[in-house]
Amino acid sequence: MHFFSDNVTPIHPKVMAAMAGADSADHGYDGDAWSKRLDGAFSDLFETPVIALWVATGTAANCIALATLCPPYGGILAHEEAHIATDECGAPGFFTHGATLLPLPGDGAKLTPDVVAARLKAIRPDVHQSPARAISITNATEYGRTYTPDEVAALAEVVKPHGIGVHMDGARFANAVAHLGCAPADVTWRAGVDALTFGCVKNGAMVGEALLFFGPEREARAAEAERWRKRSGHLFSKGRYLAAQILAMIEDGLWLDNARAANGAAQALAGAAAARLMQPVEANELFIRLTAQEAAALRAQGFDFYDWGEGAARLVNNWQQDAQSVAPLAAALTALGNE
Amino acid sequence: MHFFSDNVTPIHPKVMAAMAGADSADHGYDGDAWSKRLDGAFSDLFETPVIALWVATGTAANCIALATLCPPYGGILAHEEAHIATDECGAPGFFTHGATLLPLPGDGAKLTPDVVAARLKAIRPDVHQSPARAISITNATEYGRTYTPDEVAALAEVVKPHGIGVHMDGARFANAVAHLGCAPADVTWRAGVDALTFGCVKNGAMVGEALLFFGPEREARAAEAERWRKRSGHLFSKGRYLAAQILAMIEDGLWLDNARAANGAAQALAGAAAARLMQPVEANELFIRLTAQEAAALRAQGFDFYDWGEGAARLVNNWQQDAQSVAPLAAALTALGNE
Amino acid sequence: MHFFSDNVTPIHPKVMAAMAGADSADHGYDGDAWSKRLDGAFSDLFETPVIALWVATGTAANCIALATLCPPYGGILAHEEAHIATDECGAPGFFTHGATLLPLPGDGAKLTPDVVAARLKAIRPDVHQSPARAISITNATEYGRTYTPDEVAALAEVVKPHGIGVHMDGARFANAVAHLGCAPADVTWRAGVDALTFGCVKNGAMVGEALLFFGPEREARAAEAERWRKRSGHLFSKGRYLAAQILAMIEDGLWLDNARAANGAAQALAGAAAARLMQPVEANELFIRLTAQEAAALRAQGFDFYDWGEGAARLVNNWQQDAQSVAPLAAALTALGNE
Amino acid sequence: MHFFSDNVTPIHPKVMAAMAGADSADHGYDGDAWSKRLDGAFSDLFETPVIALWVATGTAANCIALATLCPPYGGILAHEEAHIATDECGAPGFFTHGATLLPLPGDGAKLTPDVVAARLKAIRPDVHQSPARAISITNATEYGRTYTPDEVAALAEVVKPHGIGVHMDGARFANAVAHLGCAPADVTWRAGVDALTFGCVKNGAMVGEALLFFGPEREARAAEAERWRKRSGHLFSKGRYLAAQILAMIEDGLWLDNARAANGAAQALAGAAAARLMQPVEANELFIRLTAQEAAALRAQGFDFYDWGEGAARLVNNWQQDAQSVAPLAAALTALGNE
Repeated sequence: MHFFSDNVTPIHPKVMAAMAGADSADHGYDGDAWSKRLDGAFSDLFETPVIALWVATGTAANCIALATLCPPYGGILAHEEAHIATDECGAPGFFTHGATLLPLPGDGAKLTPDVVAARLKAIRPDVHQSPARAISITNATEYGRTYTPDEVAALAEVVKPHGIGVHMDGARFANAVAHLGCAPADVTWRAGVDALTFGCVKNGAMVGEALLFFGPEREARAAEAERWRKRSGHLFSKGRYLAAQILAMIEDGLWLDNARAANGAAQALAGAAAARLMQPVEANELFIRLTAQEAAALRAQGFDFYDWGEGAARLVNNWQQDAQSVAPLAAALTALGNE
Repeated sequence: MHFFSDNVTPIHPKVMAAMAGADSADHGYDGDAWSKRLDGAFSDLFETPVIALWVATGTAANCIALATLCPPYGGILAHEEAHIATDECGAPGFFTHGATLLPLPGDGAKLTPDVVAARLKAIRPDVHQSPARAISITNATEYGRTYTPDEVAALAEVVKPHGIGVHMDGARFANAVAHLGCAPADVTWRAGVDALTFGCVKNGAMVGEALLFFGPEREARAAEAERWRKRSGHLFSKGRYLAAQILAMIEDGLWLDNARAANGAAQALAGAAAARLMQPVEANELFIRLTAQEAAALRAQGFDFYDWGEGAARLVNNWQQDAQSVAPLAAALTALGNE
Repeated sequence: MHFFSDNVTPIHPKVMAAMAGADSADHGYDGDAWSKRLDGAFSDLFETPVIALWVATGTAANCIALATLCPPYGGILAHEEAHIATDECGAPGFFTHGATLLPLPGDGAKLTPDVVAARLKAIRPDVHQSPARAISITNATEYGRTYTPDEVAALAEVVKPHGIGVHMDGARFANAVAHLGCAPADVTWRAGVDALTFGCVKNGAMVGEALLFFGPEREARAAEAERWRKRSGHLFSKGRYLAAQILAMIEDGLWLDNARAANGAAQALAGAAAARLMQPVEANELFIRLTAQEAAALRAQGFDFYDWGEGAARLVNNWQQDAQSVAPLAAALTALGNE
Repeated sequence: MHFFSDNVTPIHPKVMAAMAGADSADHGYDGDAWSKRLDGAFSDLFETPVIALWVATGTAANCIALATLCPPYGGILAHEEAHIATDECGAPGFFTHGATLLPLPGDGAKLTPDVVAARLKAIRPDVHQSPARAISITNATEYGRTYTPDEVAALAEVVKPHGIGVHMDGARFANAVAHLGCAPADVTWRAGVDALTFGCVKNGAMVGEALLFFGPEREARAAEAERWRKRSGHLFSKGRYLAAQILAMIEDGLWLDNARAANGAAQALAGAAAARLMQPVEANELFIRLTAQEAAALRAQGFDFYDWGEGAARLVNNWQQDAQSVAPLAAALTALGNE
């Protein structure tokens, strides 16, 4: 049993069935019936008018969102360990035509209002410095932490007076919502989020995330985003297969079911490794202290995962797992004793 | 029965089965077993060492190829009606960071050595003018015409002394090869092609084209292409599903079977509309003269298609059709008589 | 005496004196007294509120203007022989992040409403094609032709309903106005021009053109332009020397005096070579039919110039010349007789 | 007497004279006699073959240099307070098409081998992370500190095995060399520098820095740089005036004379404010602790300068000053006593 990453999991059967059911169509790109249902489905889910675009990958969704919020001479506030800052090979610079990342520190890969406010204060309002025009926060974060609705709102409150758009990277948005127990609306547009990458791939889809725009500027931004989607080669001619996957995820609550399963697995492991935890477990990932010897012992029992620097490991749970299925690893962790 | 475009056809059952068979994997991105088989499979098919990358769309494959061939200050020779020039919303400019398209005329959307040579001669070798660094030809072309191996070689002979890389947009490469009856190698690397967009989506796949690099610079160019794939958001975490589709297309000859079926359908219609043809039919598309009244008559019988300006229509055949299945339209065309 | 180009002429003494007079300053970039006078001086000259930025070169001024008018996915209508299309090594693509040039034909490098309207009609209003968002016209053109106020207005009338911004490349604006005898306002903002490259370098300055914005969007566009000026490395720390040059050109009518001198020289030559003219002479350039033998004969007498393809030559007059000073060449042309 | 910045100083009379002496020319751009002398003059000065391009501003020189060293997907190591990181409005992102700045800490805005090595070690060699391809160091730094030849060599030793090109931002290179007392070669190519921004504007020129390329790749890089210079609008048609300024600076040692004067002024002030120094004074800038009251007192005596956050000030000396001319401020500082 491996815990490498949730991004290699199989396709959920309901998603595969939905793709098979989308075979026949008359119109290409996003002119088909499935693509046209996205706005409505997400508007229902988020209790507000939403414009939703299918996009192939989280990187593309994040970067297209940022391109609609930040001009090439602008700056993007983000955690220094955010995926966009470390693992997209400069994709934000590509899509925004060179906008400047403004990396910030913070525990658990979370930004805090104080840090953001201090950074904003340090930017001179002249033409020599890149003005911050977007902020990107990841929920759940790269360390499996979540922002509560209040925390998101507090950040938005700091940045909005500066004309800064708020993007949420929700590659694991389902896991965050499942943990928070709030309405999707509460932690997004109600808290000030303008654009959301709604992740599906890590949660059971094959290929396809949803890029959502909220609020009064949603139409203008989505129109821009459609251009960026096309010119970046992301307007699939058979886009209905992406739309069908996304609809299968959200229309019957599959997204939350899957996330709850993965989160439940993570909690089970967290209980067994409580003394080892480097971060609170608020989604489907654990970061634990683990010696090389202990790691070897677990691997010898058939559990695999990535090391996280020296003396630590990352365990990622996915929709195929739950508290019960990971019980063997929980037992093995318990057997290791405290570090 | 509609003849709008081959880009909305269903997924071939063998392709769908291949995806279902790729569910289980340990490694993401292109670290899986399917992705790793691509180089070998294409090397076999093309009888030479090939590096093959799965890419989501033809636009992405074309533009990544061009980005590896042409610097931002360079120029790209292409037909003025090439897909990259007219229908990608400036995607080549995006991926190449502003390289200049050098549009050229030519019957059937085909470039000829004379036109290309004249254009090259007109570029002053100073720093003020963009030097041509790439040429992109489409085979089969946007008008359903093909370049023979000799024609490709003649173009390559003109441009190679100028240090110009040769890209072939093969969104309908299978249809071209099926028509030409040559080896894939003959009309590509043996004729001087450096990079090929090997189309699968129009020919029965769901999402996924292959970008192939030939020749001594293939490794350096593919390494660049991998960076471009990542930073443009095209490195799918579950790339195995793209690789599996592509393998299903090529490993048992499905690509040629499907193309032959579509081409056969086109020939059947061409025979019935011989006097109306605006272009020789060399692949799976027909461009025919058709009055508005005639078009209406055909549509009344249940055949649909796009008008092509005034007094003309485009009919595109696909892998689900063949000479037999389009017989009703052939009969209807025959019944219209000569224009 | 040479007639290569007006872009290598010496600095006019009044301009040199103005630079020497700008030596002392407390503030860098554009915070100095000279830079701050630009808006007012140009507002006076153009009889309307103008925002004016000094920019180092015509290429930079043109491209920054276009970057404020056209998004990266947009298209720029321009003559196929416009400087931006042929002689800036892709600079428009660089500054606009890949916007697509839409080259158009036209006698004398002039665009006409019919040609522009037809091109606009051919662009499908979908996401696949680049929407035209800017038009750039050169006055005087690359062939020494001028657009009258009515001609500019007619073009603007065609494009404005499409939301297309109008840029005028006025590298030789002074020569055009001197020829037209109109107010600068008449052939610019009153006719629909949104942004003007007001050339000084070809007309007696050392380094420095003015980029002018007119109309209700001038402030927003100039604010964007200031960012582009900075990030393209064009915000000189000692910008006062550029501002001083420009002020010297416009505050006492030097710009028109110089242009009239050069135009007068061109008319004197045009009179002597009337039967050879390939284009009407409406500014300071002549394009004449001239055999290789004739060219050699002229060069033997000490006159030099560029060939313009085979059997033709380009003669460019500059501010140091006038009808009298070029009389020897006029005589030599007359002596050649008709071609 | 003000100490705001050396970037607003007048033009040195010898430089102004050189410009006046460059009035007559036959060839534009960089085809003139002055531009053609640059390579030789700098080769002499640096005791090695050098290719030298005039460039208008330090921002342009820095960014063009980086564009030749770093691909769009690459990373640029630089101090987090480097000018390219903080004061160029994203210009490096513009010129490099989105390359990622990798900001690093260090006292006095200096990078150290340990910090650089640690950062390099943290970059995974996969396609997800931007590989460092360039390092940019500023000499003298933004805090008036210098890198010795040994310090530069130590940095180069760390990065060269990674295929990383070394750029030196020498906006105040003259001040650094004047302080170090070494040959220009010692602290540049002999220590591993590939490209140098040789600043003139802060040191007495009007407009024009020199971008120098050293070593075996100099020709290829300079050829790229020429393209970037053109497409960024920095190829001035009357480039001879820039070349003439630069030649005037270097051919008779003016660059060092001017720097020595400014450095001497700084040392005089440093002596008077020794207990207040926040950084060693190794060039022409001082950063001193100064209360608001003390600052007001100095300003009341006619000395002006920028505050540097709270309780501190920056004093910049320039070529017009020397130890003697700043004696009044030295006396005033002495009179303030220790903080």
